[in-house]
Amino acid sequence: MALVVQKFGGSSVASLERIRNVANRVMREKEDGNRVVVVVSAMGDTTDELIGLARQTGPVLDDREMDALLATGEQQSAALLTLTLRNMGCDAISLTGWQAGILTEPVHGKARISKITPERIQKELAGGKVVVVAGFQGLSPGGDVTTLGRGGSDTTAVALAAVLGADICDIYTDVDGVYTADPRVVKDARKLPYVSYDEMLELASLGAVVLQPRAVEFAKLYGVKLQVRSSFSFAKGTSIMEVGQMEKERIVTGVAHDLNVAKVTLFDLPDVPGIAKTIFKSLARHGINVDMIIQSGNRNGHNDISFTITRDDLPRALTVVEQVRQETGASGASFGEDVAKVSIVGAGMQSNPGVAAAMFEALADEEINIQMISTSEIKVSCVIDAVNVAKAVQALHRKFALDEVD
Amino acid sequence: MALVVQKFGGSSVASLERIRNVANRVMREKEDGNRVVVVVSAMGDTTDELIGLARQTGPVLDDREMDALLATGEQQSAALLTLTLRNMGCDAISLTGWQAGILTEPVHGKARISKITPERIQKELAGGKVVVVAGFQGLSPGGDVTTLGRGGSDTTAVALAAVLGADICDIYTDVDGVYTADPRVVKDARKLPYVSYDEMLELASLGAVVLQPRAVEFAKLYGVKLQVRSSFSFAKGTSIMEVGQMEKERIVTGVAHDLNVAKVTLFDLPDVPGIAKTIFKSLARHGINVDMIIQSGNRNGHNDISFTITRDDLPRALTVVEQVRQETGASGASFGEDVAKVSIVGAGMQSNPGVAAAMFEALADEEINIQMISTSEIKVSCVIDAVNVAKAVQALHRKFALDEVD
Repeated sequence: MALVVQKFGGSSVASLERIRNVANRVMREKEDGNRVVVVVSAMGDTTDELIGLARQTGPVLDDREMDALLATGEQQSAALLTLTLRNMGCDAISLTGWQAGILTEPVHGKARISKITPERIQKELAGGKVVVVAGFQGLSPGGDVTTLGRGGSDTTAVALAAVLGADICDIYTDVDGVYTADPRVVKDARKLPYVSYDEMLELASLGAVVLQPRAVEFAKLYGVKLQVRSSFSFAKGTSIMEVGQMEKERIVTGVAHDLNVAKVTLFDLPDVPGIAKTIFKSLARHGINVDMIIQSGNRNGHNDISFTITRDDLPRALTVVEQVRQETGASGASFGEDVAKVSIVGAGMQSNPGVAAAMFEALADEEINIQMISTSEIKVSCVIDAVNVAKAVQALHRKFALDEVD
Repeated sequence: MALVVQKFGGSSVASLERIRNVANRVMREKEDGNRVVVVVSAMGDTTDELIGLARQTGPVLDDREMDALLATGEQQSAALLTLTLRNMGCDAISLTGWQAGILTEPVHGKARISKITPERIQKELAGGKVVVVAGFQGLSPGGDVTTLGRGGSDTTAVALAAVLGADICDIYTDVDGVYTADPRVVKDARKLPYVSYDEMLELASLGAVVLQPRAVEFAKLYGVKLQVRSSFSFAKGTSIMEVGQMEKERIVTGVAHDLNVAKVTLFDLPDVPGIAKTIFKSLARHGINVDMIIQSGNRNGHNDISFTITRDDLPRALTVVEQVRQETGASGASFGEDVAKVSIVGAGMQSNPGVAAAMFEALADEEINIQMISTSEIKVSCVIDAVNVAKAVQALHRKFALDEVD
């Protein structure tokens, strides 16, 4: 008897009709003889509505109270799905995060799971029940409700699958899998039958968000077999697995793009040791994540440093960068929001040295200027003018023949 | 430094504007130098809306899941009030029922509080925080969320006041106190400055519902000083206290009426021992509460038994009574929904034997026929035709000069 963990996102439980659809899938899995643990997000826009209510109380949104407020959304959808299952004759029980034994660090808003004590879940499973767990939440050592950050229900599902030794963790969402590129940009983008954990991590962090990156890391760490599939069709989704388990290693698996990028440049910094430290420590202290960094060559004892951050962080970055400029004696700073990042990702890239060059060639053929480049073992990213994004993604998709992926 | 428990009902927190109003009251109490524990109900119609959603899942409303669902309403209002307080510069923290240490029997839908472990509340109070507790809910020994039944937040507030040794428990509601009669029926009804616990209990159970009866019992048992007052005005409310603490003992304190009454009669029951037991055991087994009972005198070895139940229970009672009729050999049964109960309540009644007679006289003067009578030490109730209710209440209010109460 296999153990299956199923996770349904907010759009999959956005109405009672959709919850009935979910209940049908759960029952099908149960009728196939499996034990089933279901993790649900809050219904549709519930979380955003609760945030909207909270905002009306004033400008200060205490993190602990926000977590207490937001966690109720998943508790409601878990109870409603359970009521639906019981009305269909399927024995089921809902558990909140703390009832499910999900313990986290004492951090609010984006806590990490520190431990799971699954005794209650195991007891209910042994009693023949479908266990419906409220996603996105846990309990701190001090007994407070915490939340795991946006997409946290993915992490709940993967962590439970790991701890319970589930045979599969199915992530149901409103897309039916991971594509070679965003189908809205590339009309002949193909659904990938499988990708590696590392490819998925790169794709997620590069803007092709299907799964919370932390959930993928967790799955990789504990070897959880993941599948991304649609809750609205019975089509096979995309499996996420170890490279070694993949049928074949592709050189390039997909093209990702990300418009949530802003570029900052500091001009004429003195070329002395410690300057970079000063800049990036200040940004880190203000919680601003830096993605790519380039430094120009020395020019009369001075050089320029450019870096990218998310566009969301730009307002906060303005004041920090101005302070840093004064501290370091830079002659000026510029801020650009009209940039974007395009990336190619593929597990086979590390053994094929010509891939980056092929990427640059494809962009050059389209007369797209590359402003910044960064690479890892399985990806190459370029910052370009935002206006060229669609053209770049389409060109790269053609260049690496991704419409022929199978 | 006094400890004050304040309870705000659903209408007092029905919108963010009203929650701000509540926050102002809480802060005023705090600024007076008091420690404050606040208990809140769910916002406005939240509970009914959640019940409406649950009903759409099908006819079976599992009690445990309903409790899991409904408890979120109070958790949301507690978090939103806390966010509001913090935005006003008042340090505060919200606690769910289980975080507040409210333990109950393992019963769903109307659990009784079995124990409170108030360490967390005491810790937060000691830290100078206003503690906002989600009312209406607790935790079962098995770790499930339970609810305390309609009006359960009253019980939460009183129980916390008892355990914490609070100096006062203020119940804020949409009426500004307890009246000598329903002001919608008697236009010169007077607000009572004080009533005894027992009078309040009788008034509540007789249809003049201002406080959950269980909350009043709890307050009496632990000597909690209660006050019912309006969250929309600063007028003094009604204090609820021991008879011995009252300035003067009134013979009649108020007139209550109740339209949620139905009358059932079984005809020509054989006058043998055990018949009454058979009838009322069957009803009890089906969870139908019987209020008043009368038995006619023996007539040829047979008699009739009439009793009243709540009108809500009538549909279920129909089948139970028909079974009982067949079992007992009664010749027939009748069911009446066109009845109501009027009652007078007063702590001084027990030492004034003429009170019941005065009541019957007042009703007779209005040519109102009395169908059933029941009495306790501090109340007399009569079942009459529903159509005569307003006339009866007005006549009784006049008869006992309740418009002169002070």
